[in-house]
Amino acid sequence: MNHTQDRSQRITHIRSRLASLGLEGITFFDLTMIRYLVGFTGSTGILFVGKDRTVLAVDGRYTTQARHETGGCEIIECSDIIAGIAGIVAALPSGSVGFDAPAVSVERYEGLHSRRGTTALIPLSDDVRGLRAIKEQEELDLLKEATAIAAAALQETVERIGPGMIERDIALDLEFRMRQGGAEQPSFDSIVASGANSALPHAQPGSRRIERGDFLIIDYGAVYKGYHSDETCTFAIGSVTKEQEGIYNIVRDAHDRALDAVKAGVSCKDIDAVARGVIENAGFGRYFSHGTGHGVGLDVHEAPKLSKESTDRLEEGMVVTVEPGIYIPDVYGVRIEDMALVGSNGCEILTRIPKDLRIL
Amino acid sequence: MNHTQDRSQRITHIRSRLASLGLEGITFFDLTMIRYLVGFTGSTGILFVGKDRTVLAVDGRYTTQARHETGGCEIIECSDIIAGIAGIVAALPSGSVGFDAPAVSVERYEGLHSRRGTTALIPLSDDVRGLRAIKEQEELDLLKEATAIAAAALQETVERIGPGMIERDIALDLEFRMRQGGAEQPSFDSIVASGANSALPHAQPGSRRIERGDFLIIDYGAVYKGYHSDETCTFAIGSVTKEQEGIYNIVRDAHDRALDAVKAGVSCKDIDAVARGVIENAGFGRYFSHGTGHGVGLDVHEAPKLSKESTDRLEEGMVVTVEPGIYIPDVYGVRIEDMALVGSNGCEILTRIPKDLRIL
Repeated sequence: MNHTQDRSQRITHIRSRLASLGLEGITFFDLTMIRYLVGFTGSTGILFVGKDRTVLAVDGRYTTQARHETGGCEIIECSDIIAGIAGIVAALPSGSVGFDAPAVSVERYEGLHSRRGTTALIPLSDDVRGLRAIKEQEELDLLKEATAIAAAALQETVERIGPGMIERDIALDLEFRMRQGGAEQPSFDSIVASGANSALPHAQPGSRRIERGDFLIIDYGAVYKGYHSDETCTFAIGSVTKEQEGIYNIVRDAHDRALDAVKAGVSCKDIDAVARGVIENAGFGRYFSHGTGHGVGLDVHEAPKLSKESTDRLEEGMVVTVEPGIYIPDVYGVRIEDMALVGSNGCEILTRIPKDLRIL
Repeated sequence: MNHTQDRSQRITHIRSRLASLGLEGITFFDLTMIRYLVGFTGSTGILFVGKDRTVLAVDGRYTTQARHETGGCEIIECSDIIAGIAGIVAALPSGSVGFDAPAVSVERYEGLHSRRGTTALIPLSDDVRGLRAIKEQEELDLLKEATAIAAAALQETVERIGPGMIERDIALDLEFRMRQGGAEQPSFDSIVASGANSALPHAQPGSRRIERGDFLIIDYGAVYKGYHSDETCTFAIGSVTKEQEGIYNIVRDAHDRALDAVKAGVSCKDIDAVARGVIENAGFGRYFSHGTGHGVGLDVHEAPKLSKESTDRLEEGMVVTVEPGIYIPDVYGVRIEDMALVGSNGCEILTRIPKDLRIL
């Protein structure tokens, strides 16, 4: 019952915002948001939250599942769920309905628009996106369980890593251990990137055998009851040069200082600037080619965004990654990432693996 | 070089259609289509195919990877890839550019639209979607390898299945064996559904222990070099009642007759009607709550669609699933699924597991 209670508060929260947004209701196409709001975990569905009713449209594959998973929500079964939701929108006496514009394809929008009757459709973006950024206690518990499962698995996998092992086999070992430990799935395709592959921030694990002298980046996470962990360790294999140590320490310093700056009230752009500043001052600015971090929860990437262009501000209860890196094309890369819970006066690091340079 | 050659033919094919569509070019947002056309496998990118240039816009995380993976394609690195592609669209002398409307969110569309200059944006749907339906020989080889990996894994897993095993452990064992056998990943979250769970067409494997007298549905697949297999077996556990055998045989008959009807020139709606007719005639029509099948390739669900409403027609070289089922809520369900390559005079079944009722 605990889950259902929390969810009904979430619906209440949406309802409380309808008046200020001037809306009769909001249609949600994003499946993660639907899971957050009513608990449905199927792969197809559209949710309508109105002033006095909540309706989930699903096709015949999901009717029974939707009834089992949700509470306090009408389920309608339709072979065309766009038409089903459009029927509800068109039947409203008048006014406007919002929709989550980042999650609706132009094609589905046209399907809704052509059947909407006299109701206006209003695109919502940040209003909707930011809703999940601040985590409830129950969500924090699940995130912590996810980081614990991930850490236990990596600690076991790391004991087996050494020169000669194949990237793909390491990824498989790690993912298998996470699943055995209770993860539903990996948070994303695990990145296990050695040697020159480590210079690709989003490398896919391949058939390369890791060698003495490599950097080995492992960026991975576990999903527990829908909640994602996200952590990156960079290891040295066999030995490490002074130059490698230098690069590692720059990234480590960027990571540590950015985490030191994380607290409620700070703008996300400023956290990015702290990490980026360290790397730029060391002369490697052009090799840090991505943002510093992102929110994490039911999605592995969600609000807020920690980047140069971000307009978000940290608030108590947000969970964000801090993950600076340096990538020297065709040579190697280093990335160090932790997840932090934003507090009023600092942050709590949720990920578990120590980030001192370790030689395997 | 083989891959690159095939891909350049695909680009040539797109170009050859620009004139008849009245377009200066097409922007592709769908990552699977981008992989198909230029080989890029990253998680963010937009492709423009014009009359005389092909441009892939990526952010800094993917620049090096995009250069490695693609050939004959300009790579532009931009922190905002929508703006990057919009710049190319706006710089065209005049005319119209198509976009893949099912893959573009309303938000991204607005970003492109506001910066498009005087160029018109034309939504494309079926024109683009159907492009990958007919498989080339190289693609068929990869699909066959995917089905072989999947079958070998299930055959091993099945040897271990019996009363008392937990659904989730079966899924993990199966997925681990597929990965060991060379799969990049499962085609989707494997469905391992026993007892009343088998009545949920898209059940998630849970902590239920399978029991004597259950039906056990396993719907799963392997991804090999991007290509997906998709197959469903329903097993009986320990024993089987006459009633269960009856239901199984109805689904089996629907499956067999639909496959017998698969050949080039037949409308997809008619294949659905064959399977549905068998189940309806047996009095279980309301318990077959989904379409009969779908195309499969780089996506696990792609064109064509085998359903009541489909307007597609089978053509030689398409690969489709045939997967009728009967689901009696809170009791049990049966689904039987194979993948078939459409030929001029029949079909070749690509999946490997025999579909006679087997008691484990």
